[in-house]
Amino acid sequence: MQNKALVLDNRPVGDNASPANFKLVTSPIAPINEGEILVKNHYLSLDPYMRGRMNESRSYAAAQNLGETMIGGTVGEVMESKLKGFNKGDLVVGMGGWQLYSIMKKGEAKVVDTTHIPLQAYVGVMGMPGVTAWVGMNTIIKIQAGQTLVVSAATGPVGAVVGQLGKLAGARVVGIAGGEAKCAYAVKELGFDVCVDHKSANFATDFKNATPKGVDGCFENVGGLPFQLALRRANAHARYAICGLVASGYDGTPTPLPDISIILAMRVKIQGFIVSDDMSYWPAALAELGGLVATKKLKWHETVAEGLEAAPEAFFGMLKGKNFGKQLVKLI
Amino acid sequence: MQNKALVLDNRPVGDNASPANFKLVTSPIAPINEGEILVKNHYLSLDPYMRGRMNESRSYAAAQNLGETMIGGTVGEVMESKLKGFNKGDLVVGMGGWQLYSIMKKGEAKVVDTTHIPLQAYVGVMGMPGVTAWVGMNTIIKIQAGQTLVVSAATGPVGAVVGQLGKLAGARVVGIAGGEAKCAYAVKELGFDVCVDHKSANFATDFKNATPKGVDGCFENVGGLPFQLALRRANAHARYAICGLVASGYDGTPTPLPDISIILAMRVKIQGFIVSDDMSYWPAALAELGGLVATKKLKWHETVAEGLEAAPEAFFGMLKGKNFGKQLVKLI
Repeated sequence: MQNKALVLDNRPVGDNASPANFKLVTSPIAPINEGEILVKNHYLSLDPYMRGRMNESRSYAAAQNLGETMIGGTVGEVMESKLKGFNKGDLVVGMGGWQLYSIMKKGEAKVVDTTHIPLQAYVGVMGMPGVTAWVGMNTIIKIQAGQTLVVSAATGPVGAVVGQLGKLAGARVVGIAGGEAKCAYAVKELGFDVCVDHKSANFATDFKNATPKGVDGCFENVGGLPFQLALRRANAHARYAICGLVASGYDGTPTPLPDISIILAMRVKIQGFIVSDDMSYWPAALAELGGLVATKKLKWHETVAEGLEAAPEAFFGMLKGKNFGKQLVKLI
Repeated sequence: MQNKALVLDNRPVGDNASPANFKLVTSPIAPINEGEILVKNHYLSLDPYMRGRMNESRSYAAAQNLGETMIGGTVGEVMESKLKGFNKGDLVVGMGGWQLYSIMKKGEAKVVDTTHIPLQAYVGVMGMPGVTAWVGMNTIIKIQAGQTLVVSAATGPVGAVVGQLGKLAGARVVGIAGGEAKCAYAVKELGFDVCVDHKSANFATDFKNATPKGVDGCFENVGGLPFQLALRRANAHARYAICGLVASGYDGTPTPLPDISIILAMRVKIQGFIVSDDMSYWPAALAELGGLVATKKLKWHETVAEGLEAAPEAFFGMLKGKNFGKQLVKLI
């Protein structure tokens, strides 16, 4: 039985990250030791943070080592277990990486219940993206009924949850997404009040028109112009949760702010956060999200690439917004 | 008996604010009505926020109306009272404005105790500047022992309190001030660990050397380069309280940030605040500050201009950092 894995072969220079940075490696699967499980991964999750790991630069996370399997969240099935609490056939979530088989130790995998929730949701709405949305909304933005909430990458796995939580809280929800199809989905399927297309030539004007009462909360997944526009419309005591700067930051392109005086004038709070910084929020977040999923109050969309070999192209496509909703790779 | 007042005669254009924007007006003092007191102002406080009031632009405060007496904090003596709770001879603090005599109503003046605290401290360490320092430190920065705290305008009435509160909390306190004399005062008299001269050609290098362990908290009174440098040195979960952008903001000159990616990478919090937004903190703040003043654990310095006519020049000098410590105008 052979494992296939994608390793980081070389680091991107500037914004020239590409599939050529990865290398496919085939190797025999080692026998597991006491305290380990062998997991056959069903789905790999592709997420923007991975782009940061490819760099050597100062970031919140350690850089991915060259020659090692790329980091990534996975869901899969236990094939063999020498670890108490895990049995052959259990479905688990963990950080299995960009590979077909993973060996995991205590604390690295969690058994999940797929009675009411599909397996791959555990790397989506019931996983890191969903909890990220919940933490930003509940610890930073705290949107109130009647306030205006802006969310960029509105149809992405984080943004879609943010917007739906905003609607459940009674806020006016303004999405920002790339293209008419995504914007239509945000409004018709996810229930956003309005969604502004950042690819439109009228983006700045459209955004202003979409926020007639200003902005009280903003969940920023993108950076660049969307963030500048949203900050310019800040109401008094507006809260900006900075979750991702995928449009500009990961490639080393700076995201400048032309003027910070509005931070003082409107007593704005801008806060960067990473969901893994404080795991204590996860149980409460998953309890609420699980209830919403089970009662069909939370929707999501998936784009699924077929096979490990398709992962690099799907990954860079996602960074450019070519995907729609949660980007997964089906491994079996 | 005549009153003399400085009114806002015309608005500054761009950064051309000058004493020519004000006009001295002499008028008879009106008789007071029931529910009013007549106060002879001893000291006028000059503060950076006044510059914002001179503009018509969107700000946190209503613009100062043309032809009206400039807003300002004052301490003085009750000359005549038709208001319950106030007697002739009482010493009071209030927003008397840039004038010799003020007529105040219920809620506009507060009797102060000068047994252990000098009268003019009630517009300084025991007034708006002191409470501003306390609120920023206690509600946003929350500095911990061993962490590094940066404060700009370090010898100003806010900065000096911030730094001393930082030392009392066990932090390493790094001041930023203009000129060797102010820096020496911050270290020798106020007890800062180090103070960096922003007028030095080596400012950026000096600042980096002064923060070998990065920055955990920053009380920003200035904006511009000091803020950019302090943000670049952010440690994980650093907190930046934005209290003033006097160096660049009030004159309409933007304070750009070249790159916000560090906000995400280091999960930074940047929060603008204005002390008058939440008056509920004042009693706790004044209780703590009063205790520190009474036990001589809090020091301050004053620059006193003589006479109302000297106020405009003293005000613009303060905005340029020509004063040292709290800028007052002695009116009698």
